[in-house]
Amino acid sequence: MQPPDDIPYDRIRAVEWADDCLKLIDQRLLPGRLEILSLTSVAAAAQAITDMVVRGAPAIGITAAYAVVLAARARFRADPANWPVAIEADLELLAAARPTAVNLRWAVARMRGLIRAGIAGESADATDPMARRTSGASRASITSRGPRLGPIGDPAARLLDEARRIHAEDIAANHRMGALGAALIEPGSDVLTHCNTGALATGGYGTALGVVRAGVAAGRIARVYADETRPWLQGARLTAWELLQEGIPVTLIADGACAHLLKQGAVRWVIVGADRIAANGDTANKIGTYMTALAARYHGVKFMVVAPTSTVDLATADGAAIPIENRSADEVLQFAGARTAPVGAHAWNPAFDVTPAALIDAIVTEKGVVLAPTAEKIRAMMAPS
Amino acid sequence: MQPPDDIPYDRIRAVEWADDCLKLIDQRLLPGRLEILSLTSVAAAAQAITDMVVRGAPAIGITAAYAVVLAARARFRADPANWPVAIEADLELLAAARPTAVNLRWAVARMRGLIRAGIAGESADATDPMARRTSGASRASITSRGPRLGPIGDPAARLLDEARRIHAEDIAANHRMGALGAALIEPGSDVLTHCNTGALATGGYGTALGVVRAGVAAGRIARVYADETRPWLQGARLTAWELLQEGIPVTLIADGACAHLLKQGAVRWVIVGADRIAANGDTANKIGTYMTALAARYHGVKFMVVAPTSTVDLATADGAAIPIENRSADEVLQFAGARTAPVGAHAWNPAFDVTPAALIDAIVTEKGVVLAPTAEKIRAMMAPS
Repeated sequence: MQPPDDIPYDRIRAVEWADDCLKLIDQRLLPGRLEILSLTSVAAAAQAITDMVVRGAPAIGITAAYAVVLAARARFRADPANWPVAIEADLELLAAARPTAVNLRWAVARMRGLIRAGIAGESADATDPMARRTSGASRASITSRGPRLGPIGDPAARLLDEARRIHAEDIAANHRMGALGAALIEPGSDVLTHCNTGALATGGYGTALGVVRAGVAAGRIARVYADETRPWLQGARLTAWELLQEGIPVTLIADGACAHLLKQGAVRWVIVGADRIAANGDTANKIGTYMTALAARYHGVKFMVVAPTSTVDLATADGAAIPIENRSADEVLQFAGARTAPVGAHAWNPAFDVTPAALIDAIVTEKGVVLAPTAEKIRAMMAPS
Repeated sequence: MQPPDDIPYDRIRAVEWADDCLKLIDQRLLPGRLEILSLTSVAAAAQAITDMVVRGAPAIGITAAYAVVLAARARFRADPANWPVAIEADLELLAAARPTAVNLRWAVARMRGLIRAGIAGESADATDPMARRTSGASRASITSRGPRLGPIGDPAARLLDEARRIHAEDIAANHRMGALGAALIEPGSDVLTHCNTGALATGGYGTALGVVRAGVAAGRIARVYADETRPWLQGARLTAWELLQEGIPVTLIADGACAHLLKQGAVRWVIVGADRIAANGDTANKIGTYMTALAARYHGVKFMVVAPTSTVDLATADGAAIPIENRSADEVLQFAGARTAPVGAHAWNPAFDVTPAALIDAIVTEKGVVLAPTAEKIRAMMAPS
């Protein structure tokens, strides 16, 4: 169907659990068509993540959490005694669906922790090395937290509760980040954003686009410039669509125009999301982000990264250790489905790049704002409060 | 017709005078179709320049020179006595067809000089303020140079000689620049280029792509990376096509990937053309060039501008004085008739940006190489030898 032209952001649900299955807006088709896919198997969900039916680091994390529910349901039906072991293959499949965004692995680890806690009678957090590393909490101190699954019985309902909790926490984090990020912006500023970080990329509201929404509502942001974000055109196809729904003034530019735009002087902040923030603040985000950070620094424009703490990976020391996904050359050789380059041409298509912490003025998470990020400041922010 | 896949560069003629008219490859259709338009009026030629049937600063200069022949033929037939006055409207039309590339005005001025010399019995150069400014030569010293037109008689043949001379000089300049530029490159280097600066953008051989051709032939360049160059996709559509004809290894990237590419360390030079080089070395070139220059400087990669002296505008003090053409938003919002952004979206589409001289390591013209360009060095290079 044609997308209606008046969906408020709080009605956009890129990912949803409904009718006992996982629903995804097929973002490959926007803005021309709004199609919602209903997925009932973990394999289909993993493929949807790989194929970018759903994209955006928080959104794929939430998708994976719901996909674990699908997996558990099937594994439990097939083998009620052994499903917690059998599901491990599904968890691995999901975690490997895309390599760069750490939210995917974070969500899978959180669901795995719950499953293991169900078996061993331990808490979710305590059995998962990643969660333990991230929280820094001792095993004893968190044993009492978190829901539990009994070792016997259909686990889907309890796992679905946890997936819904992950989803709701993400939306709450986005609203909190929106307020924190908007407060950094001088009233009347123009801003530039890259890729799509809105309701379509998250549980709802958005990370960088959440700051945009809050900033526009507070009169701090006058106009949004959006890089079209080749090759996948998230800016042209998704960000422009989301902002148009709400009447937020948005002007698209070719990615290569960003430095020329910043030279004009009206843009005060570049605001982007993140797929993984390393322990030292180096940030992997959509290809082209690094270039906007270089242009921002050269022109004295501030650079803000907005992401929930599920995007922070303390186990990755710095940007050099972040795996960068290379996608099909066809994404570059074609444009909107039509071949643009001559037959025989080659392309290199890294989907992400790394912006060094030194070029970042502020990292905004739901736990607070880190100015001029360093490993020490990020570690302090991530410490359990 | 389908473009043949084995046209050597020296057979690619973006602009040509043949069959008594102006022939242009319609570059809007490449690489899918090779169509050659035959133009017989100056109005059609001016429109073709505006619509980017032909593009590339040197190529549009040559096109304008041939278009003056069409204009003179028509004006002379209409009014043999008064044609040199009547043609002035055509010259203005041509000069205004696109604002940024100065080669267009340079070529029109050179043809105008010849026309006026024909009337007054003076030399072409001496009567044209722009040519005088550029050459710096005194009126007396150059009176003896250049062909003349008698005040009576069909002027087309003499003007055609001059247009062909402009064309041939451009090709010769490109070969000279190719040798000069390639000599700056360490053997085995990878390079990055932006937009199309090859045979399709010039009289033949190319400016930056001439350096690439000479560098590959000399074993100095191992691989060429080409930005796809949104919104018009000159890199994907034209540069890849030209290089594939010759078996030169070329890898396309999305424009936003340039900083990430340069971080990998293999690229030693970014090599671009120019639409106008101001007196101080600030250089207007295709939108996105400035961004590649910023990324190059940040990563210690050298940045080379390659352009004939017809691109140097001593009358423009610096980059701030160069007019930047803004083109239709539709170029960003659509591609090949397919809309990519949602209905109602706006776009800003500057066609060029300015790279400050401070970010340029070398300007290569047919008169020599200027390292770390300054107004003094450029003035010295432009002085008559």
